[in-house]
Amino acid sequence: MSSADDLMSLCKRRGFIWPSYEIYGSVAGMYDYGPLGFSLRNNIVEIWRDLFKGREGFSEIDTETVNPREVFKASGHLDKFADKITYCTKCGAPFRADHLIKDFCDNADVMTEKEIEQAFADHGVVCPDCGGKLGPVEDFNLMFRTNIGPGSSRIGFLRPETAQGIFLNYLNLYRYNREKLPFGVMQTGRSYRNEIAPRQGMIRMREFNQMEVELFFDPQEPFWPRFAEMKDEVLTLLPNTGTETYTMTVGEAVDKGIIKSQILAYFVGTIKQLLVRAGVDPARLRFREHLKDEMAHYANDCWDAEALLSIGWTEITGIADRGNWDLSRHAQFSGADLTHFKRFSEPKEMEIEKLRPNRRNIGPAFKGKAKEVADAIDAAVPGDVKDGKLTVTVGGETIELGPEMFDKATVKEKVAGERIIPHVIEPSCGLDRIFYTVLEHAYTHDDAKDYTVLRLKPEVAPVKVGVFPLMEKDGLDDYARKLCDSIHTHRVEAYYDGSGTIGKRYARMDEAGTPWCITVDYSTLSGPDAGTVTIRDRDTTEQKRIRAEDAPSIVARLLAGTPFADI
Amino acid sequence: MSSADDLMSLCKRRGFIWPSYEIYGSVAGMYDYGPLGFSLRNNIVEIWRDLFKGREGFSEIDTETVNPREVFKASGHLDKFADKITYCTKCGAPFRADHLIKDFCDNADVMTEKEIEQAFADHGVVCPDCGGKLGPVEDFNLMFRTNIGPGSSRIGFLRPETAQGIFLNYLNLYRYNREKLPFGVMQTGRSYRNEIAPRQGMIRMREFNQMEVELFFDPQEPFWPRFAEMKDEVLTLLPNTGTETYTMTVGEAVDKGIIKSQILAYFVGTIKQLLVRAGVDPARLRFREHLKDEMAHYANDCWDAEALLSIGWTEITGIADRGNWDLSRHAQFSGADLTHFKRFSEPKEMEIEKLRPNRRNIGPAFKGKAKEVADAIDAAVPGDVKDGKLTVTVGGETIELGPEMFDKATVKEKVAGERIIPHVIEPSCGLDRIFYTVLEHAYTHDDAKDYTVLRLKPEVAPVKVGVFPLMEKDGLDDYARKLCDSIHTHRVEAYYDGSGTIGKRYARMDEAGTPWCITVDYSTLSGPDAGTVTIRDRDTTEQKRIRAEDAPSIVARLLAGTPFADI
Repeated sequence: MSSADDLMSLCKRRGFIWPSYEIYGSVAGMYDYGPLGFSLRNNIVEIWRDLFKGREGFSEIDTETVNPREVFKASGHLDKFADKITYCTKCGAPFRADHLIKDFCDNADVMTEKEIEQAFADHGVVCPDCGGKLGPVEDFNLMFRTNIGPGSSRIGFLRPETAQGIFLNYLNLYRYNREKLPFGVMQTGRSYRNEIAPRQGMIRMREFNQMEVELFFDPQEPFWPRFAEMKDEVLTLLPNTGTETYTMTVGEAVDKGIIKSQILAYFVGTIKQLLVRAGVDPARLRFREHLKDEMAHYANDCWDAEALLSIGWTEITGIADRGNWDLSRHAQFSGADLTHFKRFSEPKEMEIEKLRPNRRNIGPAFKGKAKEVADAIDAAVPGDVKDGKLTVTVGGETIELGPEMFDKATVKEKVAGERIIPHVIEPSCGLDRIFYTVLEHAYTHDDAKDYTVLRLKPEVAPVKVGVFPLMEKDGLDDYARKLCDSIHTHRVEAYYDGSGTIGKRYARMDEAGTPWCITVDYSTLSGPDAGTVTIRDRDTTEQKRIRAEDAPSIVARLLAGTPFADI
Repeated sequence: MSSADDLMSLCKRRGFIWPSYEIYGSVAGMYDYGPLGFSLRNNIVEIWRDLFKGREGFSEIDTETVNPREVFKASGHLDKFADKITYCTKCGAPFRADHLIKDFCDNADVMTEKEIEQAFADHGVVCPDCGGKLGPVEDFNLMFRTNIGPGSSRIGFLRPETAQGIFLNYLNLYRYNREKLPFGVMQTGRSYRNEIAPRQGMIRMREFNQMEVELFFDPQEPFWPRFAEMKDEVLTLLPNTGTETYTMTVGEAVDKGIIKSQILAYFVGTIKQLLVRAGVDPARLRFREHLKDEMAHYANDCWDAEALLSIGWTEITGIADRGNWDLSRHAQFSGADLTHFKRFSEPKEMEIEKLRPNRRNIGPAFKGKAKEVADAIDAAVPGDVKDGKLTVTVGGETIELGPEMFDKATVKEKVAGERIIPHVIEPSCGLDRIFYTVLEHAYTHDDAKDYTVLRLKPEVAPVKVGVFPLMEKDGLDDYARKLCDSIHTHRVEAYYDGSGTIGKRYARMDEAGTPWCITVDYSTLSGPDAGTVTIRDRDTTEQKRIRAEDAPSIVARLLAGTPFADI
């Protein structure tokens, strides 16, 4: 077994992760989080909140997962969020077409249907299951589809990203932030991707968890006020201009133009801080810029945080520059004005295109209403003219005006500001992938002793303290239970364990990633050390005696970063 | 406008709740949580965690929302989770059939299709939209349906409750809890109910949030170790034996047999503590026992926590006794053994039905294999016999044995224990309904002054402190911003506000439910009070001067419950 298999079996055994619906035979790409897994995952979310909500003051929202069709028509997911599929003509099994030719074609994921079919023919690719002939290659949309309400008239989809819920609320959020840029909005929750045939465990889940931040900013001011605090953070970068990896600071990356803006670089740095604090090994972390033909339909530029896992370098977070794609699309499809009014420091004289009523033709045509029609033309803008015609409403009546009724003219006017569509930087974390990476990077196995330690950082470890009675008798067990209760809260989990040898209990806690264990022994009950217990450090296995009543505050200090040697 | 309308408009204005997809015209029964709403909701979840995970030590898990069909065939939702629907034969609009006859029939929600159709005829009920004739009444299943993977061969549904994910993991959870009863498992997350025509705002959402706890216990031991700590909690109870409301303690309710078991009563008490701590007014809270014909298909008994809202008494939490419905159904449909091995204090002599091989017939029929076949019969149990026949596997071969090959006999044996199916008590909270109730009960409007205060409890208030500079100049703004930063964390949110008069800023914070506001004024910068700021209490409007540097610790003490008068 590989160490990844060992890890997954540990995850099942200790209650981190369980395949969903196991009693019904499981469903590929679906996993449940057990008690330890949920706590670990939640602790990662809390670091994300600390950085984005605590430090940056961003707003966190929570939006619906079932969305009506219109949303994804506008966002582009209805047309572009697809993988290439082929079915075996003999056994009917579905396959991701590009995966079948990966060994022959470097760029399989950007090839067209016809090119993939040609590759099948060129390389004699057949059904991996039964050897049958493969059918035509086509697009398979990856959104789960459903109907909202009775009947099939209102089609809905499960969201493929939490981001759209933020864009849809742009107007509410813009007002909440007092109509100023920049502002950041965050959301964590479920997203869905109806994979054709998921095979990579937690790396490719049909139902997955994201932590996304959408940062709305003025593209003419791609700066960040706290940049000075971030500029010395060191990054490992793999730009899309070559194949070389560079190690440099955030500041250098901006100065050399490797990361295109200060604001993008600031959030690349923030993601590095988040990942390392959660327990991703910095030596197995790099940021890779997407190739031009690799980018999602909405992105202008994207840096992926990639972790080195047993399956190779794997994307665990993307920091994308989505430009104004989403807001401009939703504005276009919904008719809503999703702009920011950018006030000039002082009013500017600008050349403006205006519509002017052609009174010579309006008078005879509209008589008594001529003035109202002329005013309506004055109030309109050139963008209102469609196919050379302008539609106005006068006294409740809708009137279509031909080009003979108005002229376009360029005039000079003093204006206070202009409407711009904000641009968006999106640090988008794959929470399950980060979770899995943290586990792989924490996993250590001593082959000689056949002993496993999960070296989780205390901040993310699900259980902070194991509490053991030396023996489950003579009152040691009651003492230990009370001590455990005195430490345990829903944020600082303590776990009582009285069964098996102390060695076995340490081994269980080491395997669960618990940073400290406390043992109640006979010296605790009487003698010169009465009232004291032993505390053991997972990573050094060092032990100390402390007063039992101090245990909650000592654990708090350890969690706040005090070294074990100093307690 | 009613105060409920005023509240919803406040919720939109201040960023608690926004109708989803508003730029596309909204979808009934779908709401997004804005920044303040998300924080308030999350603070309620944290109280739930404190009580169930912190105090009781229950395990929290997180399971998938898309479930394969098998799950809901077993759980009964495929057959029973339905409302009665009728469509107008003229305009095609769908209606909840029972809602159309509510004014004429007391028991509309338990009437059959035919009875409802008769009631339409008797009372001349027609389409409320167009006056057309109503069509036949039928069942409409309320689960959102989708397909998992390509094609339509694997049907899935969005879960109607988080509970099933816990039952499906019973075996994993039972092992995690060292195969002992009782144990509790909790889950919070999205559930779905594809309502026919939702009209009650946040009370009836198509996509909603639950906090559910499943408590597995031995039905012969319906007790709870901490009961003594709960027995004096006072409840307002409305049992299903009459129409009278009683006020009594948890202990009295058990002694008088009004609540059927200690364990059920303990968790009714816990839910009362949760709701009141979150801000539900105890004077507008009661527990009502379901009528026999009102219970969900899985429940033996159920007490609803009902809050008095502007729309009347409304269920916000249910505490159901689900018996062994779910585990026995999933055992039956999946074939998995979902029992608990209950070890007797000492082995008991018991009469046991056994199968015995009929060696006289086996010998001639199976010859060389006769011993193996006989052993296989010994290892089988009477429950394995189907239609009088027993199927055994011998040396890889499946053999069907007729009744002549074995006998049933009752023997006395010493047994160490027995297998039981645990029973389940389920405190199931409608998180959105609790959220809405907390808002309604906190909402106060002084008509004379036209002034609104949201008297949220500090523990749940989204923003804990507003920080204002008296004027946005002379360094007051910088001072206030730094002070705000020194207090603000993602768990103790502080909000800087510099715009408008101080009165307006207090009004905004009062409306958002912020318990305290701090103002930086000219005395802060120089003079005898240099370094001090004013702190104001929302509910008393009392003000005090405190040292700015003490503000974070004073806020922490206030949040821990220190009265404003004592700081």
